[in-house]
Amino acid sequence: MSRSGSHSHRVRWWCLIVAVVAVWVQQVEGVWPLPQQLHQSADRDCLSPQRFSFTYGRDSAAQTGCSVLDAAFKRYFSIIFPDFTTLSGLLMPENELSNDVVLMFVVADTLSVSEGQAVLRSVSVWGALRGVTSCLLSLLFFYFINKTEIVDFPRFAFRGLLLDTSRHYLPLYAILKTLDAMAYSKLNVFHWHIVDDPSFPYQSRTFPDLSNKGAFHPFTHIYTQSDVIRVIEHARMRGIRVVPEFDSPGHTQSWGKGQPGLLTPCYKGSVPSGSFGPVDPTVDTTYKFMASLLKEVKFVFPDSYVHLGGDEVSFACWQSNPNVRKFMEKMGFGKDFTKLESFYMESIMNMTAALNKTSIVWQDVFDYHERIPQDTVLEIWKGAKYQTELSRMTQAGHRVLLSAPWYINHISYGQDWRNSYAVQPQNFSGTDEQKKLVIGGEVAMWGEYVDATNLSPRLWPRACAAAERLWSNEEKTLNADLAFPRLKEFRCELLRYWKYVCNYSLSTSGLFQARCAYKTKHLVFDIFFFF
Amino acid sequence: MSRSGSHSHRVRWWCLIVAVVAVWVQQVEGVWPLPQQLHQSADRDCLSPQRFSFTYGRDSAAQTGCSVLDAAFKRYFSIIFPDFTTLSGLLMPENELSNDVVLMFVVADTLSVSEGQAVLRSVSVWGALRGVTSCLLSLLFFYFINKTEIVDFPRFAFRGLLLDTSRHYLPLYAILKTLDAMAYSKLNVFHWHIVDDPSFPYQSRTFPDLSNKGAFHPFTHIYTQSDVIRVIEHARMRGIRVVPEFDSPGHTQSWGKGQPGLLTPCYKGSVPSGSFGPVDPTVDTTYKFMASLLKEVKFVFPDSYVHLGGDEVSFACWQSNPNVRKFMEKMGFGKDFTKLESFYMESIMNMTAALNKTSIVWQDVFDYHERIPQDTVLEIWKGAKYQTELSRMTQAGHRVLLSAPWYINHISYGQDWRNSYAVQPQNFSGTDEQKKLVIGGEVAMWGEYVDATNLSPRLWPRACAAAERLWSNEEKTLNADLAFPRLKEFRCELLRYWKYVCNYSLSTSGLFQARCAYKTKHLVFDIFFFF
Repeated sequence: MSRSGSHSHRVRWWCLIVAVVAVWVQQVEGVWPLPQQLHQSADRDCLSPQRFSFTYGRDSAAQTGCSVLDAAFKRYFSIIFPDFTTLSGLLMPENELSNDVVLMFVVADTLSVSEGQAVLRSVSVWGALRGVTSCLLSLLFFYFINKTEIVDFPRFAFRGLLLDTSRHYLPLYAILKTLDAMAYSKLNVFHWHIVDDPSFPYQSRTFPDLSNKGAFHPFTHIYTQSDVIRVIEHARMRGIRVVPEFDSPGHTQSWGKGQPGLLTPCYKGSVPSGSFGPVDPTVDTTYKFMASLLKEVKFVFPDSYVHLGGDEVSFACWQSNPNVRKFMEKMGFGKDFTKLESFYMESIMNMTAALNKTSIVWQDVFDYHERIPQDTVLEIWKGAKYQTELSRMTQAGHRVLLSAPWYINHISYGQDWRNSYAVQPQNFSGTDEQKKLVIGGEVAMWGEYVDATNLSPRLWPRACAAAERLWSNEEKTLNADLAFPRLKEFRCELLRYWKYVCNYSLSTSGLFQARCAYKTKHLVFDIFFFF
Repeated sequence: MSRSGSHSHRVRWWCLIVAVVAVWVQQVEGVWPLPQQLHQSADRDCLSPQRFSFTYGRDSAAQTGCSVLDAAFKRYFSIIFPDFTTLSGLLMPENELSNDVVLMFVVADTLSVSEGQAVLRSVSVWGALRGVTSCLLSLLFFYFINKTEIVDFPRFAFRGLLLDTSRHYLPLYAILKTLDAMAYSKLNVFHWHIVDDPSFPYQSRTFPDLSNKGAFHPFTHIYTQSDVIRVIEHARMRGIRVVPEFDSPGHTQSWGKGQPGLLTPCYKGSVPSGSFGPVDPTVDTTYKFMASLLKEVKFVFPDSYVHLGGDEVSFACWQSNPNVRKFMEKMGFGKDFTKLESFYMESIMNMTAALNKTSIVWQDVFDYHERIPQDTVLEIWKGAKYQTELSRMTQAGHRVLLSAPWYINHISYGQDWRNSYAVQPQNFSGTDEQKKLVIGGEVAMWGEYVDATNLSPRLWPRACAAAERLWSNEEKTLNADLAFPRLKEFRCELLRYWKYVCNYSLSTSGLFQARCAYKTKHLVFDIFFFF
C-alpha cells in the first residue's frame, strides 16, 4: 500500500487518516482479493442509513477536504444505500459519535469492526481507500455486516491492467468503467497502451497531425487533452495510477501518417518501395521529435512511470535502407541490428530519465541489450519460459513486471481464469533479493478482437484472478476450487455495484441474473455492466 | 421460403403481397446473408422520409391489416428514419405513387429497385418479410440506395438457433433481442432448449411444481405462460418459428424436484442411494405425466415441431435399480439398456405423433435405435464424423438437421467464425435424394458459461456465419476472405439497427465504435447491443 501510495501523488496526498464508520455487518464469501488477515464473528446486525456515517478521526491527518476520501465516502455511501438519496448520514461531526477511537500509526492497514463502529487505520489515503473498499464492497451485504477484524496490505505494489486503444478505439466511458472495476479488484495501475500501428488516438498538443491523420477518425476516435485529464482524475480518485505507453521504434505505422520523415522508408533493391518500417533511428529529426513528444507526455501524465515499448522491432526494412546500412557502418554496428535498436532505445530512455521519469520497457529491450539504465523496469510478455526471464532480469538487478501469463485477451472455452490464478510470480530460481525485484504484474487486454461492445465481458471477472494473485498471500490462495465461490460472489457484487454506482440502467432481471450465476455449477466469466 | 412459410402459420398467413417502396439507394458491402442473385447499378440517390412509403400492390393478396407486414413496415421505417418520429410517409395510398407496378406470381422472391421505386414480389408474407429485411437493412445505407435487382430464396428451410435457458436463466428481453438479430440474419427457427438438469424455468399450467421447485427461483427465474406467448408472438412477427425442447429421459434432474416418482431411484447395492437417474421408463405414471405435459406443450407452442431430446442417457442408474432390471427381463431386453431407452423414446414419439406434432430428436436416438418413425427429424450434435452420420441417417430416409459443427458456445481466440463458415452441410457420400433430406441446421449456444451478461457478444456476429451457410448459394460463398468485409459491415448494421429499433440507449460513441471495427484488420466478433 505504502509502496503504491509512495509514487506520484504521495507528496500531494500523504496523510494519516482514520475513518470512523458506525455500522453493523454480515459475513459473505465475496471478499476479493482475499485480505492478508480476516477474522469475522457470527455477531451481526442490520445496517440503516440513519445509523451510518463516515467521520475523520480527531487526530487523523486527513480531514474533510481530503478530496480522494471525501469523494470515496460519497461513492460508497450511495453503494451501500442505493435507495437512500440524501447524504445526511455522511460526515457526521465526530463528537456525535462514540469517542473510543484509537489512533495508531501502523505500516499495515487495519480495519476492525466492533460494537457499533468500525475503525479504519491507514498510513496513507490510498490504504484507507482500499480499506473502505474491502469493508463496504465485500463485507457488507444487503445492509448486513458482521463483527470483523481485517489486517490487509498488498503483496505487490504494482498491480496493473493494460488496455489497448489503438487496435480498436475505446470510448471514454468504457475506460472509466474499467477503472471502477479495477478499484473494486484493488488493481492500482492503468497501463494505457494508447497508440500503436493501427491508430494514433492521442490528440497531441505539440503534434496535432498525429491524431488528425493517424486516428481512425480525427474527431470521433481520439482522446482529447480533456479526455486524458478526465481519465487520470477518475483513476486518481480510485487510487489508480495511469502509466501511458508510447511504443517505439516498432508499432508506429500510425505515427508515420502525421509525422512525415519519422519512419524508415523501406527499399526494394535500390528504390524506395513506398512502404515504411520502424522509426528511423539514424536521423536527428527523429530524436528531436521524440524529445518534444516525451516532454509533452511528462506534463500530461503526472505518473512517475512512462512505458516506452521497444518490442517486436522488425529489422527487414532497416536492412533494406541504404542510409541505415551506412549509419550502421559509421557506428561500427556491423550487421547486428539489435545494436541499432539498442542505440535508439538507449537514447529514448536517457531522454525519459532527463525528464525525471522512470522507464518501463518490454522484455525485448533487455534481451537484445543487457546494459540498460539500472532503474529501468522490464516487463515480461513472451509466454514461453518466463521463469527463466525472471531469473535473468532480476539477476541483472532490474525491477520486473510479469504480464506474459496474464494475456487474457486470449480467450478459451471453460474456466480459463484458473490459468491466471495458478501463476506464481516469485516461483523462479533466484535469491530473496531477486524475488523482491518482482514489483508486480499486469493483466493485458489487447485490442485485436476487443472493443467497447465486448471489452467488459472479456475482462471481468477474468481479470480478478490476477488481481488476487497480485494482492493476496499466495499460500492462502493457491487452491482455485476454494477461491471459486468467492469469485462467483464477487462477480455478483461487481454487477450490483456497477448498477448502484453508475447509471447503467441495469435491469432488475439483469441483477437477479447475477445472483443466478451463483446457483449454477459453472461460473459465467464475463460480466457485462452496461445493461 | 415457401418451405419455411409452409408450417404452422402459413394457413393463417398465406397471402401474395407486393410492397411498393418509393426509394433511392446506395451500394454497400453489408448484404448478409448473400442473396441468390444481386445486381446493383452505380446509379444512386438520396432517400428522404417524405419521399418514402410502403404500399400494398393493388392486386396483392396481402393488404393493410396483414399484421405481420404492417408491423414490419413500421419497424423498418423507424430503422431507416430513426430521427423521423411521425410515420406520415407510411402506407401512402397507392394511387399517389407511380403506377408502373408489375404484379407477378413467382416462386422465388424478387426485389427490384428501379427509378423512384422498388417492387417486392413474394409468394408468402414470410418471403416479403425477408425481402424487406434485405432491402432496408443491407442495401440501404445512411439514407442512400442504389438501383438493385435481387432474386432471393433460402438454400435450407430450417435455419435454427438454440438457446439454453436451463444452465443459466435468460431474462425475457435477452431472448427477444436474440430474435431481432435472428431476423436480420434470416434465421427462422428459435430452438428453445427451455429446461434441462440445472433448472426448470418453464411454468407449466398442468404441473406448476416443476418450476416452483425446479427453477433457480420460483418467481424471478421462470417463464410464465404470458412470457412464452410474448416470445412466440415476437418471433412470429419476424418470421421466426419457436420449437420448444423438453429433453428426456436424460437431462431431467430439475424435473424430479417438482414431480416425485418421475426419476429412477439409483441404488447402492440393495438400497436406494438417495440420488436419482433418468426418467423411470418402467412405470405407467411416467407415461401419464409425459402425455399430459406434451398435451400442454402442444397447445402452448403452436409450431408443428417439438424437440424431444433423447441425448446422453446414462445407464448406470437404471442398471443399479432392481425394478428396472426386472422390467428389462420381463420385456426381454436382456442387458441391453439401449433397448430400454428406445422403448421409452418410441412411446414419447408416438404420443407426439398422436398430437399431430413432428418429433425432432438428438442423434443418439437414431444411433441406438434404427427403427424410428420415418417422419422423425434427427439432429446431429456429436462433433466427430458428422458426415458419416449424415449419410447413415439420410440413407435411412430421415430428414436431418446439422448442429455439430455449429456449437459456437465453444469459443476460441481469433477468427473462429471461419470454422462455422467452412461447413458444407451436403458434402457427404449419398444420392441427390439423400442430400435433399438435409433440411437445414442449427447454431447452438449452450448455457454452461453464458447468461444475459455475455450472451450477445458470444452470439453475434459469430452466428451469422452459419446463417449465411444455411441461406446462400454455397458456390458463391465458399471464400471466407471475400465474405469478411461483408460480415464486418453487417456487424455494424446490426449494432446500428439494434440502437434504432430497440431503446438500448446505445451511446453515440458506441455507434461510432461499430464503424471503427470496420477500419481494423481484425473483426471484433462480438457485438453487444445493450449499451
